Amino acid sequence: MEFQNCFPVWKKLNAVHREKLLGSLVSRTVKKGTVLHNGDNDCTGLLLIKSGQLRAYILSDEGREITIYRLFDRDMCLFSASCMMRSIQFDITIEAEKDTDLWIIPAEVYQGMMAESAPVANYTNELMATRFSDVMWLIEQIMWKSLDKRVAAFLLEEISIEGTDTLKITHEAVANHLGSHREVITRMLKYFQNEGMVKLSRGTITIADAEKLEELCEG
Amino acid sequence: MEFQNCFPVWKKLNAVHREKLLGSLVSRTVKKGTVLHNGDNDCTGLLLIKSGQLRAYILSDEGREITIYRLFDRDMCLFSASCMMRSIQFDITIEAEKDTDLWIIPAEVYQGMMAESAPVANYTNELMATRFSDVMWLIEQIMWKSLDKRVAAFLLEEISIEGTDTLKITHEAVANHLGSHREVITRMLKYFQNEGMVKLSRGTITIADAEKLEELCEG
Repeated sequence: MEFQNCFPVWKKLNAVHREKLLGSLVSRTVKKGTVLHNGDNDCTGLLLIKSGQLRAYILSDEGREITIYRLFDRDMCLFSASCMMRSIQFDITIEAEKDTDLWIIPAEVYQGMMAESAPVANYTNELMATRFSDVMWLIEQIMWKSLDKRVAAFLLEEISIEGTDTLKITHEAVANHLGSHREVITRMLKYFQNEGMVKLSRGTITIADAEKLEELCEG
Repeated sequence: MEFQNCFPVWKKLNAVHREKLLGSLVSRTVKKGTVLHNGDNDCTGLLLIKSGQLRAYILSDEGREITIYRLFDRDMCLFSASCMMRSIQFDITIEAEKDTDLWIIPAEVYQGMMAESAPVANYTNELMATRFSDVMWLIEQIMWKSLDKRVAAFLLEEISIEGTDTLKITHEAVANHLGSHREVITRMLKYFQNEGMVKLSRGTITIADAEKLEELCEG
């Protein structure tokens, strides 16, 4: 897989930018669970995923988590280079949810291109708008949706990502995605099990009736 | 007040852009309560506030509201021109909270400048990052802060904006800012009154002990 084919505005870059970009790229392979970026302590650079899966989340003072968005093959992570823009006043943690191959673009190289190239700046705008839309969707979920619907939607998203009905995921991990508590999620999943929607066993959740889960989401 | 002094990247525009921008500007005066932009039904254009105050909020299917951010003198509203960027996939309502004088920049004029000018595109990036930071702050509030702290913080923000300790605001309006219900807010305000932090009368909330409210926020 070549960087040129994965970076959407490559064709709009001039020769100087192309050379500088290729010369500064870092390829990295990280194991599932690796924290790639941690709040504003570091300015990791932009991450372009070759293959794998990343999760961006925020942490409360008490260590609670909520997933803000997830990134997949060919997605670009902007907020791991938040030092690049002074108006970004929030801290995000980025963690590999699967073993991941990625390129890192140093923040100062990207920032230089963005200052000189309208196409790069506009591409960055679209990236940020995409994440903004994710976050607005999240606010709507938190504010207006009950937790049963949010858990059902999360399980359906997971089976779609994983391509299997048997999810290897702990109740605590579900809680951390949704900004809830493990006990609350366990109670909800047991209710789902009683309703015949899932089957629970140690470390796995098996979807038994996806249709019923979808009805719950939409109802 | 001249547009040239209020638009931060004016000096970086070329002559063609300057002429096009000034030729397409619309000046408008709106009364408090006017809805300037309503979801994705219209593409109002960018709003640059001369003087006044706007509120951006989202609505649930049941008509509940929550304030996403507020805009003051010389602030620019980007999401009233969301048609400009295809990655903006959410609907926001913009309403005047006070009588407001503003300029409207047509979306297609701004979009044209942004496509050609890196400074305009980067200014737009910073604008979006600022609003993104507002929204991330909001998520943290909703997720990790109890409602008493959020009400206290809102009242302190209001007296700072209004420059007075006597706020002409209904309990329903407070609920709509915070995404809560009127009954819940009324109960909370009565508790604040019992604690000596506010005095309530029809249509007004008077701050009696700002220091105690601040302690509550920070505690």
